[in-house]
Amino acid sequence: MSLIVQKYGGTSVGSIERIQAVALKVKQRRDQGDAVVVVVSAMSGETDRLLGLAKAIQSQPAPRELDVLLATGEQVTIALLSMALQAIGCPARSYTGAQVQIRTDSAHNKARIRDIDDARIHADLNAGRVVVVAGFQGIDEHGNITTLGRGGSDTSAVAMAAALEADECQIYTDVDGVYTTDPRIEPKARKLDRITFEEMLEMASLGSKVLQIRAVEFAGKHQVPLRVLSSFEEGEGTLISLEEEIVEDAKIAGIAFAKDEAKLTVLGVPDHPGVAHKILGPVSDANIEVDMIIQNIGADACSTDFTFTVHRNDYAKAMEILRQTAESLAAREVHGDQEIVKISLVGVGMRSHAGIASRMFEALAQVGINIRMISTSEIKISVVIDEKYLELGVRALHEAFDLSKPA
Amino acid sequence: MSLIVQKYGGTSVGSIERIQAVALKVKQRRDQGDAVVVVVSAMSGETDRLLGLAKAIQSQPAPRELDVLLATGEQVTIALLSMALQAIGCPARSYTGAQVQIRTDSAHNKARIRDIDDARIHADLNAGRVVVVAGFQGIDEHGNITTLGRGGSDTSAVAMAAALEADECQIYTDVDGVYTTDPRIEPKARKLDRITFEEMLEMASLGSKVLQIRAVEFAGKHQVPLRVLSSFEEGEGTLISLEEEIVEDAKIAGIAFAKDEAKLTVLGVPDHPGVAHKILGPVSDANIEVDMIIQNIGADACSTDFTFTVHRNDYAKAMEILRQTAESLAAREVHGDQEIVKISLVGVGMRSHAGIASRMFEALAQVGINIRMISTSEIKISVVIDEKYLELGVRALHEAFDLSKPA
Repeated sequence: MSLIVQKYGGTSVGSIERIQAVALKVKQRRDQGDAVVVVVSAMSGETDRLLGLAKAIQSQPAPRELDVLLATGEQVTIALLSMALQAIGCPARSYTGAQVQIRTDSAHNKARIRDIDDARIHADLNAGRVVVVAGFQGIDEHGNITTLGRGGSDTSAVAMAAALEADECQIYTDVDGVYTTDPRIEPKARKLDRITFEEMLEMASLGSKVLQIRAVEFAGKHQVPLRVLSSFEEGEGTLISLEEEIVEDAKIAGIAFAKDEAKLTVLGVPDHPGVAHKILGPVSDANIEVDMIIQNIGADACSTDFTFTVHRNDYAKAMEILRQTAESLAAREVHGDQEIVKISLVGVGMRSHAGIASRMFEALAQVGINIRMISTSEIKISVVIDEKYLELGVRALHEAFDLSKPA
Repeated sequence: MSLIVQKYGGTSVGSIERIQAVALKVKQRRDQGDAVVVVVSAMSGETDRLLGLAKAIQSQPAPRELDVLLATGEQVTIALLSMALQAIGCPARSYTGAQVQIRTDSAHNKARIRDIDDARIHADLNAGRVVVVAGFQGIDEHGNITTLGRGGSDTSAVAMAAALEADECQIYTDVDGVYTTDPRIEPKARKLDRITFEEMLEMASLGSKVLQIRAVEFAGKHQVPLRVLSSFEEGEGTLISLEEEIVEDAKIAGIAFAKDEAKLTVLGVPDHPGVAHKILGPVSDANIEVDMIIQNIGADACSTDFTFTVHRNDYAKAMEILRQTAESLAAREVHGDQEIVKISLVGVGMRSHAGIASRMFEALAQVGINIRMISTSEIKISVVIDEKYLELGVRALHEAFDLSKPA
């Protein structure tokens, strides 16, 4: 007998019919002899509906009260799913975050889970019941209702799996797994059977939005095997696990990309110690997150060129700040470009395999793509290129690294 | 400084605009220097919407899960009202039934309140906050969410007022008080300034549906002064209080009526001890509630005639049962009539004033109304008449007892 935590998102429980379909899936698993805990989100559209009510009253709703309001979304789902399970002869019991004691800090709207009291759940599982838990929500030490922020149900499920020492945490969603890249860009993209936590983190943060980053981090930290699979199709999905369990000898897991970046460059900055801080300090003071940062020697030996990327929404503000900084630093000029895209090759295999970077640059050069920026880490190489080359670049790399063939 | 518990029903909080109007009313009261606890229902229509979702899954939804589902209705309202209060500069904090520890028994869907932990509320009130509590719901000793059944928010408010030893419990609704009779039947009906708990119980149970009976009983038992008033109009409403506080010398408080009754008669039952039980036992075994019961001597001295009334919905079933009973008892015949109505004169004053009954019968006779049944209690006289005489009868009695003039 295994102990499985399953998580179904808003689309998977978006109607009575879908909730009934989920009930069947859950019952199937239980009928195999496994103990099942189900974590659910609010029915799709419900959180937005509630948020709309709140915003009609306050443009910045009081965080504590917003959590009281939003927590009702999942509470509706747990009740309906428990009814649907009982209706097909599967004993079930629902719990809100407060009832099952998902204890969090007091950061309303973005709380973090501290611990979970598993006694009640184990008692129900031992009695043969499926336990249905409201995701996304918890309770702080004063008994206030908290929420983990959007998408937090993934984290609830992983935290639940960790607390229960579950054999696997299964995240049911509307895709059937993690792909080598976005199939809308490269139709030959292949579903991965396995991927490591580190690779998944890079893939997720770079735009392949399948799982919440925090959930993956949490799963990695607590070594909870995580599986992404489809609510609507049969299949084994993708297992996210520790590196040592990955048997494939793949160098590259996949190709991620980010379309919403913009780059800013300041040229001819007098090269003194602390110049990077002087440039980026005012930007981060304005709460603008900086992604890639590159500093090069300038046209003459005593000056430097400095480039960084930000989210495209922050471009105008960042540019305004940078112009002021450039003036005070007596820099030569300031450039900006919003029509860029970042493509990243991700894979733990590149640690032990030389030549990945040069093969990447070669593949891009062969199709005539000029690289604007390069940044590397242990398991990732990112390049910034002109936006118009996005599809071409992704396909060239997918081809060059043979990603459409199973490793 | 007074401590006031206010309760707003579903219609009063049926939209964002109405919630904002309630917030203004609450703030007004607090600005007068009073401490205010607000108990709210689900927004009108919400409970039915949730019930619809449940019934789409199970025709008889699991009671525990139904409570988890329905309790979200009030939770939405408390969050929105607290936001609306904060938006106009009035500090407020919301509590679910579980958070404020409204402890009930475990009878899901129709739980009864056992006690309320008032420590948390007093702490908030002392800190100058308005406390907004979800009505209709509580928590049992095992931490399960319970609901008090439809309309239970009135009871929540009264229980809250009793636990806090509030100076007054104000029930805001869509009528501006308790009237001498239904103004749709008698336009001259007058709003009462005061009424006793006993009178209110009789008026409520007989069809003047302003307040939940259980709430009135609870208020009477715990001597909580109760006031009914309108959410939409200004005014003092009607105060429901103990008899000794009623200064008016009114003989009659008002006229109630019930349009949905039906009467059944069995004639010529051999008059043996225990015959009433033999007739009514099978009826109550079928879960049919019996209202009036009258037994008379029959046409001959050794038989009896027996009449009782039931809700019109139960008439067919009751008649079927009665026919079987009549046969087994060798009764002469069975009659039934669905076109009847019950009119009741209610007033604690009639205890000490003789002649009320005869004046009532006289008034009805003067307009040619034949009385089919009579039943009396200490503070009430009820008659059953033909349905077609309802309006005529109510108006004749309203006139005869001078109810349109202030006492």
